[in-house]
Amino acid sequence: MDKASFKPSEARQLFREEKYVGNTAGWCRGYTQAGLVILPKEDAFDFLLFCTRNPKPCPVLDVTEIGSPEPKVIAPHADIRYDLPSYSVYKDGEPAEEPKNIEQYWNDDMVGFLLGCSFSFEDALLKANIPMRHIDAGTNTGVYNTNIPCNSAGKFSGNMVVSMRPIPGNLVSRAVTITSRLPNVHGAPVYIGDPADIGIKDIYKPEWGDPPIMGPGDVPMFWACSVTPQVVALDSKPKLMIAHLSANMFITDIVTESLSIL
Amino acid sequence: MDKASFKPSEARQLFREEKYVGNTAGWCRGYTQAGLVILPKEDAFDFLLFCTRNPKPCPVLDVTEIGSPEPKVIAPHADIRYDLPSYSVYKDGEPAEEPKNIEQYWNDDMVGFLLGCSFSFEDALLKANIPMRHIDAGTNTGVYNTNIPCNSAGKFSGNMVVSMRPIPGNLVSRAVTITSRLPNVHGAPVYIGDPADIGIKDIYKPEWGDPPIMGPGDVPMFWACSVTPQVVALDSKPKLMIAHLSANMFITDIVTESLSIL
Repeated sequence: MDKASFKPSEARQLFREEKYVGNTAGWCRGYTQAGLVILPKEDAFDFLLFCTRNPKPCPVLDVTEIGSPEPKVIAPHADIRYDLPSYSVYKDGEPAEEPKNIEQYWNDDMVGFLLGCSFSFEDALLKANIPMRHIDAGTNTGVYNTNIPCNSAGKFSGNMVVSMRPIPGNLVSRAVTITSRLPNVHGAPVYIGDPADIGIKDIYKPEWGDPPIMGPGDVPMFWACSVTPQVVALDSKPKLMIAHLSANMFITDIVTESLSIL
Repeated sequence: MDKASFKPSEARQLFREEKYVGNTAGWCRGYTQAGLVILPKEDAFDFLLFCTRNPKPCPVLDVTEIGSPEPKVIAPHADIRYDLPSYSVYKDGEPAEEPKNIEQYWNDDMVGFLLGCSFSFEDALLKANIPMRHIDAGTNTGVYNTNIPCNSAGKFSGNMVVSMRPIPGNLVSRAVTITSRLPNVHGAPVYIGDPADIGIKDIYKPEWGDPPIMGPGDVPMFWACSVTPQVVALDSKPKLMIAHLSANMFITDIVTESLSIL
């Protein structure tokens, strides 16, 4: 069976049973994927406030109740302790382990934040015949630190992290309007133009992901990236923080098109 | 000087000095107005989560840091203890006082939530030549309880409260697209059609505000209303809750058009 045609609940079951471990790009076409950040409840208000104040990098799809692993709004009966392929566990802000479930780390003090992922808007762009160079090449987008400050909240502050997609000049407007319709998965680009203006010295040396493939006449378009909240949260050196392993996302029951605001 | 042409900082100064006490409808044209809910920090996470899960009735424009009265994002240097014309103070869920400032109630344990107000989108509708019957008549919109459940969060749950504006049939689409662009001030209507379907028995008997004036061919359009979070918060009988007095809003430094997402 093709990964693109699995229902989200079927995919989550496979991940839960550890029958598939790996990235979720291209899984469950049309359904919204989400990044995960789990923090202790003492940090939950400040972190939710940070997300509220920075909706472009941190579009909140769901937040679990304190101590509950169920993302009730986006996937009733799912369990964020088991339903992602792999996790990253950080202790005192440093990487500690990359387990396939987080049963041993979970406790009644924890809150899970599920944040919209750009895999979801790429599907909308592809449907509009906008080429995704990295998908054609079988690589990941380049992901970069910038000098764009986020709005701080309590202990959380830092600059925005962005992903870059090269788009043909005649399709830049279309890529803006299509992603504008989907603010829950990062919305419209935060910057279009010279990477140097937002503090990116060499577009071919991303901090995360792969170097981009720029076609002739391609314009660099920068979208706010969910790596932002992870970087910002880790920077505060929380005792324990759990996140999705890069590109190993939580697949929600939400049809992305249903999130469209226009 | 005309109230519509005051700068927000000038208006706030007048309210702070108690030189004007009354509703803020029509003040500072083009600037976004906000409702206020202040709760103790023990309720802050659940309430912010309630707002996050119910963005239509509870569009969060800003949340103050615990103990700080400054809404840094939408009006740096303003002070929510003084800068609204009048407040409603509730104790154990019951109305207690309607003071002109809340100095005596404020303490380091409090968090202020500033939520987008429909005064802001009415301006956008008027600019598009969509008539606002209640403004022509010098009355307030009708505001109604419905049977539409909100997504609950922690201790907070309840049904949505809506405001209704009668719109000529040929302008209904336009009113949808214009308000869709402004999700931070309630966005598109939550319901258009027969009031009975959302549990409203008599459109001429609103729970709050004034009975509507329906022109011939007008269609009832229902927008989510910021009364919702107040009702829901009071329902949980918090020890102390402070809100804006009805229609006595906080005027932000935000130009509403700058919030437009398209």
